[in-house]
Amino acid sequence: MKNYSTQMDAAKKGIITQEMMHVAKDENITVERLMALMSEGQLVIPTNKNHTSLTPYGLGNALRTKINVNLGTSKDCLNIEEEFKKFQTAIDLGAEAIMDLSSYGDTKRFRRELIARSTAMIGTVPIYDGLVYYNKPLNEITEEEWLDVVEMHAEDGVDFITLHCGLNREIAEKIKNTNRLMPMVSRGGALIFSWMEMTGRENPFYEHFDQVLEICREYDVTISLGDACRPGCLADAGDIAQIAELVTIGELTKRAWKKDVQVIVEGPGHVPLNQIEANMTIQQSICSGAPFYVLGPLVTDVAPGYDHITSAIGGAIAASQGASFLCYVTPAEHLRLPNTDDVKEGIIACKIAAHAADVAKGLSGAALWDYKMSVARKNLDWDTMFELAIDPEKAKRYRKDSHPENPDTCTMCGKMCSIRNMKKAMAGDHVDIMD
Amino acid sequence: MKNYSTQMDAAKKGIITQEMMHVAKDENITVERLMALMSEGQLVIPTNKNHTSLTPYGLGNALRTKINVNLGTSKDCLNIEEEFKKFQTAIDLGAEAIMDLSSYGDTKRFRRELIARSTAMIGTVPIYDGLVYYNKPLNEITEEEWLDVVEMHAEDGVDFITLHCGLNREIAEKIKNTNRLMPMVSRGGALIFSWMEMTGRENPFYEHFDQVLEICREYDVTISLGDACRPGCLADAGDIAQIAELVTIGELTKRAWKKDVQVIVEGPGHVPLNQIEANMTIQQSICSGAPFYVLGPLVTDVAPGYDHITSAIGGAIAASQGASFLCYVTPAEHLRLPNTDDVKEGIIACKIAAHAADVAKGLSGAALWDYKMSVARKNLDWDTMFELAIDPEKAKRYRKDSHPENPDTCTMCGKMCSIRNMKKAMAGDHVDIMD
Repeated sequence: MKNYSTQMDAAKKGIITQEMMHVAKDENITVERLMALMSEGQLVIPTNKNHTSLTPYGLGNALRTKINVNLGTSKDCLNIEEEFKKFQTAIDLGAEAIMDLSSYGDTKRFRRELIARSTAMIGTVPIYDGLVYYNKPLNEITEEEWLDVVEMHAEDGVDFITLHCGLNREIAEKIKNTNRLMPMVSRGGALIFSWMEMTGRENPFYEHFDQVLEICREYDVTISLGDACRPGCLADAGDIAQIAELVTIGELTKRAWKKDVQVIVEGPGHVPLNQIEANMTIQQSICSGAPFYVLGPLVTDVAPGYDHITSAIGGAIAASQGASFLCYVTPAEHLRLPNTDDVKEGIIACKIAAHAADVAKGLSGAALWDYKMSVARKNLDWDTMFELAIDPEKAKRYRKDSHPENPDTCTMCGKMCSIRNMKKAMAGDHVDIMD
Repeated sequence: MKNYSTQMDAAKKGIITQEMMHVAKDENITVERLMALMSEGQLVIPTNKNHTSLTPYGLGNALRTKINVNLGTSKDCLNIEEEFKKFQTAIDLGAEAIMDLSSYGDTKRFRRELIARSTAMIGTVPIYDGLVYYNKPLNEITEEEWLDVVEMHAEDGVDFITLHCGLNREIAEKIKNTNRLMPMVSRGGALIFSWMEMTGRENPFYEHFDQVLEICREYDVTISLGDACRPGCLADAGDIAQIAELVTIGELTKRAWKKDVQVIVEGPGHVPLNQIEANMTIQQSICSGAPFYVLGPLVTDVAPGYDHITSAIGGAIAASQGASFLCYVTPAEHLRLPNTDDVKEGIIACKIAAHAADVAKGLSGAALWDYKMSVARKNLDWDTMFELAIDPEKAKRYRKDSHPENPDTCTMCGKMCSIRNMKKAMAGDHVDIMD
């Protein structure tokens, strides 16, 4: 019998768990520092007691930036095989988390199989699943039923769940009374808002937050406090609705910590580049350093088809300024459900952002990867360059498609290659592009 | 007969040129402010007197961020038709500048045709062309011959030329004596360094800088002071060689201004995200606000195949912090000469970075594009979304490949679409995903 409930509880009690040892070793920090951060809520290890295949990962500003991959069935795309392909792509490319956002079909079966197979942590948004599970009109779902879905996901082994607990009636009024261009772009938030409007009741995840905490504590599910009011366009960034909800989330964060429940906080959204740092700073102060999980942020609204890039820009800045967990965005965002190719592109862009931020933060060992790549580049050692590339397959394919006359150089510069010429010049040799 | 030599000379004399009027109108600033900035060197309008097809664009921190597209023949890829396809892609996608980096074949003919056709400003690196033009060993090219190539390009109508004037013998010694991982990754810089090493002479573009200025003044060619010592890997960023060269460039900038020659300054390179702001600030102080033209910066070395993304991250930050001109980077960087598809991807990524920065700087009108897109998104007005998209073709194609049951929404969310549901909920209507 374990003498602690959650990883946070263990940390507070000074108990070193296996998960802590694993993460400390993986991240090259001491278990003591890890525990101190965990007991203060600034670092979490989402690890549902029922997710036995999990490789534990830590989320926190002091650690490597982690990335999440969304997948799941929808009514328009009910292709289980394709979703498992996306899953495999995510695992192969090293994503630390996968959110199953399924909203159609046999979601329970899919979720259980996913959890059984996944070494990455699994997150869900129980609200979506409630609609599938009960298969009845939204306004007829009861408060108990909403909470039952949370318990069902916890029991199935979900490591973190997004709940839009901060969207209480007070915040909903602000949404109605402020002149937002896009009132709410959070899918789950809009459903809860609609439910509240139709039933006239308080958000059940806010009203019965203590009950939610009990469930999370029992299975050690990390709560991801969803930002229903995240800005869905630059024009709404940093407005009253967003920040008011963040304040509520900050209060809920502390209530969760008192019950030893691990918390991460979700963040924007669409944010102009110059507002990202302020967003990170304010979240860290309001939520006392709870790990920040950002959805982007996208630095412009005008690039559908390229939102993996708009969010890589925002994500890199966010992670270098305090965010510890990036949700990937694919080129399909705002256009369609991503296919497996989109998923791959989204993951790579997100990994670039995460790594760039880790280097910027001066994280121990992060720049070593770049250093090794540069040594290989300096030596025109193509095999090692491919091996170290974030996507060896694409790098190899690109080079293979071209035919440099000199096998050492590439078709960009040929014998004008600066690496080639400097090697000779620094050695005092004759340099020419004619030989 | 014009009563001024260069645009800068005109600005100093208080003469309003047609180019100034065009740029002021295009950028929505007063001609008075434009002239004041131009007379202080903080804004340039590269416009060679012999480039008659040019649409004048201004470069400067106070204006929209501009982008440059590199193209040109090489020994490995001598396909004039493909290069003109790249040219057309650049023009169609709104690139304001094109650098012709041709290093093989009938470069003179290609350059002249490019200039005759191009509404975008044209830049070149005469050093590359010197090797083609004289067709003799590098060390046998004389100082006069190097300068003659500059004059030839000026006469042909090139609007801005990159010359690595800052790489004098003192800086070359620093390159040899500091422990850089990658001594020099600038193609032109490495050629000049090699020429200096082999001949034992001073860099002709440094030694005869006054003569260079005479040529530039005569044709109103803007000098782009090349950064031969730009870091080629994160490990070398911000080192002595880079900053020492920047100091020299700062001195040369002021000498150019005295002769009324317009100047832009080239910048890194590979730079960790956390060093970008400092780079921009230092360049602006050392070079007294001369427009900064950055090559990236790339925020990690590990992503060959995705360097349009690594540089979009760096470019967006750089431009938001002071850079006014971004050189695109394509997915082919570090691997091969880009093809037309690579060029397109590079341009779009660079445009995203430039626009995100313009929004961040609060540039008049920049955020209006995002606003309009968001209004269309809020209205689920797909036609307008496509029209406003940075790449309408890709956005349309992505959506067309998917088949949403509801023509208003997309396959990502279907009836769970937050826009759809909030529209109903805000209007007090019933919301359901079953209908």
